[in-house]
Amino acid sequence: MSGRKWNFNPGPSVMPVPALEKAKEALLDYDGTGIGIMETSHRSKEFGELYGKLQERMAKLLALPADRKILFFGGGANLQFSMIPMNLLPEGGHADYVNTGTWANKAIAAAQLVGKVDVVASSKNDEGKFPRVPTPAEIQVTAGAQYLHLCSNNTIAGTQFHAWPDTPEVPLIVDMSSDIACRELDWSKFDLVYAGAQKNLGPAGVTVVIISQKLLDRCGDDLPMMLNYKTMAAKDSLGNTPPSFPIYMVGLVLEWIEQQGGIAAVEKVNRAKANLLYGLFDDNPDYFRAPVEKASRSLMNVVWRLPSEDLEKQLIAEATADGFVGLKGHRSVGGLRASIYNAMPSQGVEQLVDYLKKFAAK
Amino acid sequence: MSGRKWNFNPGPSVMPVPALEKAKEALLDYDGTGIGIMETSHRSKEFGELYGKLQERMAKLLALPADRKILFFGGGANLQFSMIPMNLLPEGGHADYVNTGTWANKAIAAAQLVGKVDVVASSKNDEGKFPRVPTPAEIQVTAGAQYLHLCSNNTIAGTQFHAWPDTPEVPLIVDMSSDIACRELDWSKFDLVYAGAQKNLGPAGVTVVIISQKLLDRCGDDLPMMLNYKTMAAKDSLGNTPPSFPIYMVGLVLEWIEQQGGIAAVEKVNRAKANLLYGLFDDNPDYFRAPVEKASRSLMNVVWRLPSEDLEKQLIAEATADGFVGLKGHRSVGGLRASIYNAMPSQGVEQLVDYLKKFAAK
Repeated sequence: MSGRKWNFNPGPSVMPVPALEKAKEALLDYDGTGIGIMETSHRSKEFGELYGKLQERMAKLLALPADRKILFFGGGANLQFSMIPMNLLPEGGHADYVNTGTWANKAIAAAQLVGKVDVVASSKNDEGKFPRVPTPAEIQVTAGAQYLHLCSNNTIAGTQFHAWPDTPEVPLIVDMSSDIACRELDWSKFDLVYAGAQKNLGPAGVTVVIISQKLLDRCGDDLPMMLNYKTMAAKDSLGNTPPSFPIYMVGLVLEWIEQQGGIAAVEKVNRAKANLLYGLFDDNPDYFRAPVEKASRSLMNVVWRLPSEDLEKQLIAEATADGFVGLKGHRSVGGLRASIYNAMPSQGVEQLVDYLKKFAAK
Repeated sequence: MSGRKWNFNPGPSVMPVPALEKAKEALLDYDGTGIGIMETSHRSKEFGELYGKLQERMAKLLALPADRKILFFGGGANLQFSMIPMNLLPEGGHADYVNTGTWANKAIAAAQLVGKVDVVASSKNDEGKFPRVPTPAEIQVTAGAQYLHLCSNNTIAGTQFHAWPDTPEVPLIVDMSSDIACRELDWSKFDLVYAGAQKNLGPAGVTVVIISQKLLDRCGDDLPMMLNYKTMAAKDSLGNTPPSFPIYMVGLVLEWIEQQGGIAAVEKVNRAKANLLYGLFDDNPDYFRAPVEKASRSLMNVVWRLPSEDLEKQLIAEATADGFVGLKGHRSVGGLRASIYNAMPSQGVEQLVDYLKKFAAK
């Protein structure tokens, strides 16, 4: 796309051009119906078809176990931080959480409003930073925990889980907002996965929840429909008007992933893109300082520092002017960050690496 | 728009063509930034500007009192049914509700999960139908009620409030999902108004809440951020990633309303459109049977019956084939319904009236 910039923002973030092109055609006339996609009733045959196809495609692409239900909510991952304990942490129960930084912390705080929380592992170091995620051996669940919660990828710290705790007796719940669909996974390990769409699945405004029948059976009955996994599952998330256009976009993004060759193919590209950046850092460790331990490096959010904050500011300013947007690290940690989600083309990362090399050489 | 059908669906529903055209241009490149609108960070200067302008425009168009805060939520009006009592019905308190049919009933049921509810007025008749809304005189609040709740327009029954209860001592809360921005109102009467966008304001996926400082001050402190009016107001609804594209569309729809000449101009057209249909019914009462009492007729959702269900089915089938979509009444009441929101052009209603006349003449 001429005129398009390389968008390294952490979310909302870059989306696949073919999905955007297709949406463009559907705004005034969806699929020859004479009605735009945003104007299409969620009770229509057309929406029903795209919705069914989307769920089918997601189940197939992710290779979900047969009993998993795919639900859609508004309110972002933040609402899930509360809904999970509201549905699954009954009075007198307790739940285990892993602390890997900001997002995990927000989930912990939300759960503490509902019930007893045990933080069973943390990767916080003496400086208050999170340069890694805990190993599976470090994560020991408490007896009788209702569930174990962790955040698979921390967009701020640039860390990601590459090995999972094995807790057959305690259901594993994962906030996969920033790395869902980036790699092949054994989904039978997870009883509940949730993800705000605005990184790897679509635009902001819809959150996907993938939940096992086992957990659905454990949900309480006394919550209002919009906060109740069981009711939402019984109504296939269509008990009220869903965020239909964001859902439609998720369908287009999944279609694009399928066209790339599926999750395995996307993962291969993601690993190659990440290796380009991490390779540059490892070859020039005095200039490009990668704070994350190698075993915990994120494929999605690559963070680094330069020798001085002045140099960092200069790089961000120059890169922005030259068409590389969104490289500023999160305000809580500073430094630089390149978010290279599925939809970021290899070319974008290659050009960024060249740019960084030239900047370092100056 | 050639190829566009007349879309009389109750929601998601017809949107203004100029807003859709503008969105189309922004999907791959918003305002020359080189980044599509859905890909634009909610922390960016660009989004901040459009968001500020949207709030300013809404406040001006609706002529809101100065202390009103405009908030944005996911989860639809259904989530507000629960949030209102969660925030504003403290333990031991009680709240008054008016029952005008389906949506009011859902709000009542959601509030009953939280606390004590008094249904202080109802327009249900002996047949279980709701052919009108209560008069202000019929709505007597209970002593010490935390608030009075009503739904200003019932999309299913085709009724609308045209006079408001005067309850200076009890805050008035109104579900305006299907008629916000359709007419000039004295907004100082309302302490909290909420509206799912998918009828008169934009696409599904965002709900607007307009709340007075007085009510914000009364909200509890112990709710999670996403369910807490006070926290959301303190963060200007940007505590997490908002449904940015649906919000953007709301901005475009407001811009379009402004271009029409504002709410007064839109109201004039709305009254003319509604009069065309009601006029037809009143001139042919034996064939077009309008079940709603004249004083309660909705400007937005016009419902009617034909002499037989077979004729109704025939009309729906033929009209759909001829480009008039969405005329089927809600499954709970049957009959016919034309939803003629702001974005439905006069021409669409004129053509529908001609079509109905010809159908009746056959």
